[in-house]
Amino acid sequence: MRRMNDKINLAEKVGLLEQPYVPGIVGHLNDYKIIVVKVQGEFVWHKHDDTDDFFLVLRGRLTIQLRDGDVELSEGEMFVVPRGVEHCPKADEEAHVLLIEPNDLVNTGDAGGDLTAEPVEL
Amino acid sequence: MRRMNDKINLAEKVGLLEQPYVPGIVGHLNDYKIIVVKVQGEFVWHKHDDTDDFFLVLRGRLTIQLRDGDVELSEGEMFVVPRGVEHCPKADEEAHVLLIEPNDLVNTGDAGGDLTAEPVEL
Repeated sequence: MRRMNDKINLAEKVGLLEQPYVPGIVGHLNDYKIIVVKVQGEFVWHKHDDTDDFFLVLRGRLTIQLRDGDVELSEGEMFVVPRGVEHCPKADEEAHVLLIEPNDLVNTGDAGGDLTAEPVEL
Repeated sequence: MRRMNDKINLAEKVGLLEQPYVPGIVGHLNDYKIIVVKVQGEFVWHKHDDTDDFFLVLRGRLTIQLRDGDVELSEGEMFVVPRGVEHCPKADEEAHVLLIEPNDLVNTGDAGGDLTAEPVEL
């Protein structure tokens, strides 16, 4: 039923992404989606009122801007943005990030706008 | 409210663990616990009937034995054991693994036994 080729190599999956900020689904954990994303430039300030938001940096450096200060993450570092907390990710150079979010979460939360993107299945 | 020192460096957290197979909680995502663990030797065959089980290898190599074959994971590779599927992790040499599991999950699932361990807060 499950075999070796069901494993997921995150770097390979990130390599399939063509644009920053388009979420790529690599798997599911119950009713959560496991996502990889390329971050480059600044996202949009937003929040998710109904869920925390998990970030783990796989490569590069990611800044998660919060209203009371920045969280600077390097490879192997993670941060959970608590529900309801406004945040705005950014990266000067391309960074690769693992996200875990409820299946029905919209990437831009309450903000909407041009960066709202349906995830792609990788 | 949240500041830079709230970020979590996973390698540092793993370094605080003294024994293999004792789960160390590094954070929470809604009603899930985010865990790091050292794996060395063989765990115990078990399953979780009510939840999938997320594994991401941070360092080393991890084998997730399934009844129909092994899943061999290296650094940066992940696998989700579906709910109800018997599995038994093992590693010949120490491996470091990130797990994400419901807060009330028992590490040995339906098996119990000596390796059942309360997680420690890191």
